[in-house]
Amino acid sequence: VIDFAALAAEDRCDPLASQRDEFLLPAGVVYLDGNSLGPLTRRAAERVGAVMLEQWGESLIRSWNEHGWIELPRRAGAKIARLIGAAPDEVVVADSTSANLFKVAAAALRARPDRRVIVSEAGNFPTDLYTLEGLLDLLGPGYELRRVEREQLGSALTSEVAALCLTHVDFRTGARHDLAGLTAAAHKVGALAIWDLAHSAGALPVELGAADADLAVGCGYKYLNGGPGAPAFVFAARRLQEELRCPLQGWLGHAAPFEFAGHYRPAPGIDRFQNGTPPILALAALDAALEVWDGLEMTVVRAKSMALTSRFVALVETECAGLGLCLASPRNPAGRGSQVSFAHPEAYAVMQALIARGVIGDFRAPDLLRFGFAPLYVGFEDVGRAVAALREVLATEEWRQEQWQRRATVT
Amino acid sequence: VIDFAALAAEDRCDPLASQRDEFLLPAGVVYLDGNSLGPLTRRAAERVGAVMLEQWGESLIRSWNEHGWIELPRRAGAKIARLIGAAPDEVVVADSTSANLFKVAAAALRARPDRRVIVSEAGNFPTDLYTLEGLLDLLGPGYELRRVEREQLGSALTSEVAALCLTHVDFRTGARHDLAGLTAAAHKVGALAIWDLAHSAGALPVELGAADADLAVGCGYKYLNGGPGAPAFVFAARRLQEELRCPLQGWLGHAAPFEFAGHYRPAPGIDRFQNGTPPILALAALDAALEVWDGLEMTVVRAKSMALTSRFVALVETECAGLGLCLASPRNPAGRGSQVSFAHPEAYAVMQALIARGVIGDFRAPDLLRFGFAPLYVGFEDVGRAVAALREVLATEEWRQEQWQRRATVT
Repeated sequence: VIDFAALAAEDRCDPLASQRDEFLLPAGVVYLDGNSLGPLTRRAAERVGAVMLEQWGESLIRSWNEHGWIELPRRAGAKIARLIGAAPDEVVVADSTSANLFKVAAAALRARPDRRVIVSEAGNFPTDLYTLEGLLDLLGPGYELRRVEREQLGSALTSEVAALCLTHVDFRTGARHDLAGLTAAAHKVGALAIWDLAHSAGALPVELGAADADLAVGCGYKYLNGGPGAPAFVFAARRLQEELRCPLQGWLGHAAPFEFAGHYRPAPGIDRFQNGTPPILALAALDAALEVWDGLEMTVVRAKSMALTSRFVALVETECAGLGLCLASPRNPAGRGSQVSFAHPEAYAVMQALIARGVIGDFRAPDLLRFGFAPLYVGFEDVGRAVAALREVLATEEWRQEQWQRRATVT
Repeated sequence: VIDFAALAAEDRCDPLASQRDEFLLPAGVVYLDGNSLGPLTRRAAERVGAVMLEQWGESLIRSWNEHGWIELPRRAGAKIARLIGAAPDEVVVADSTSANLFKVAAAALRARPDRRVIVSEAGNFPTDLYTLEGLLDLLGPGYELRRVEREQLGSALTSEVAALCLTHVDFRTGARHDLAGLTAAAHKVGALAIWDLAHSAGALPVELGAADADLAVGCGYKYLNGGPGAPAFVFAARRLQEELRCPLQGWLGHAAPFEFAGHYRPAPGIDRFQNGTPPILALAALDAALEVWDGLEMTVVRAKSMALTSRFVALVETECAGLGLCLASPRNPAGRGSQVSFAHPEAYAVMQALIARGVIGDFRAPDLLRFGFAPLYVGFEDVGRAVAALREVLATEEWRQEQWQRRATVT
């Protein structure tokens, strides 16, 4: 039986416990899907209302100056920089993660003009592979995406390779790569390393600067809680910025956007990775949600994250023993991000039944139950409630009910 | 002297007069900058509030299914389609105008693999030229952007040309191209025609279908009132869709986004021009603002637009005669979009002084006063008030005041 008193005691000692008040979570829900869509913050709700009614509504076009809309991509970027070990002028918010990956991969190929190979992991997040395929197809014959297994990454790095492109924390299992080690290995053969931090930013400390990282992209709507489809971010190391060319040359990446010059001159620094006009309502939500991180240290966030995921694994393995679950994430908490996945042959239906009980995780094909533990609003009692619900769903075979078998559009 | 009684009478006969109630315009403002940023609508304000608090806040990740977020790019696209003479399945909302232009220009080059030239107008909107430059630079030697003067467009169309890429309505002067004629001329040499409808969609009837148009992009935040940096749209003629490849291959352009397949398969139809996850708050604002157009006919909108701009030109030329203004837009209303520009050597300062009087237009370098007349919320009395203010600013040389001389970041 789950010792809820002990879990409650852990919540009382949690230095991050008060952060939960920042979030407008619905009553009765254990939200373990912040790695897919972070919840609404009070700050985002207030800010979006104000930007819409007072700024757009009242100041109209003048808001670009009066309310600093034009600075927002950099301001939000600087807030993210602190969470990923980067300098404030190394990160900017723009476009989607996919578009940003296209930009940095193209920039990397251009910075290594005698090389035409990008190495990635066969099991990388599919969109990243699609984006790289799209870029390389566009560039034509000779360009190649080499998809290798995790274990072969080291040996795949040869002098033909322009860039190594990986997702730091695996979206299925939560397994994390050695960012510093693989970056160094890429550098050793003269390649650049590109990191997708979708499941890392806000989930665990990322030390881009210490790792001498080159390029990275990441998502605004997972652990950063920027809202559905929030704009994404781009990181480029300062030492590389002046030599990099972004292939998406919208006006906001121009050195003098309001000059309306006939030819493109890239803006100095990271701004060259801006493109068209950013979606201000969405960007304002992200910028406001990032204020929640003010004064928080990622080491504290990480300590709680490891405690939460470890507690979850331990409780599931005792409470749900013999019920068909198999841990799909690294057992060592240091080897995973802030999520835990268990395989189950009926994972889709199990997750639907869990969601109906108010425990929201998600399903990842073919057979994964995925649970994200965002330390800013998930507590130890939540872990207990999630395990108790999972045990009920499995022990009573609740998932066999017909309504949990129907697949929805979005899984 | 301006006959305000006559103008008020015209407003009383205006079949679109009641549309103004859809807009939350600040009191005392004559807003003639909807061609830069359309104003907030009641519908957008309500919808964004509901999407944020009730959908994101309460339903969280489930909103993708429960609240149809996944359908929103197509739903909004279908609403825009009606305004630009396209079929509902020929338009989708995605990314920014710049990113979309990159996509369709790359797709056009790929559809004409033996051709490497894109023709555009030397005075095209600079971002469009930057975007084309960025694409052609990425593709490498042999690819060429030919910038020609307006009058040379016809003769620039040769068998080397893959695509003709133009902005339908000029952002400076409002002069409009013959979309059908130039599309036919492009087709005659085997080229595709790409139209930027930034200053057209919602401003005047665009008959993409009747013109046998190939590809188009456009802006959500000008005459469509989608909000600052609203997502943009892409049009691709149905007859071409299956052969076109979008180079930005994000998951939402995949045939089965939730399959998480390892290789990209383009979605059937226009959906292949989707890319990453769209910014739902911004997209919801656009989708709601598009409801304002329900039941409106673009021919009625156009008739009022021509009456407004003609009245403005006539009044300026009588009331401000001898005050240094020179009409920079086509005199024939049929030859221009829904804007009027006047040149003045001190245009920047003049516009600042006008804005301080509550008449908001904008300045376009080097010397243009630009006034947009969005027929859904601008009336005939507004025209009179704008002209009266302009006369005052010029006649009293109010623009000489020091505070109107300082250039702001965003002009």
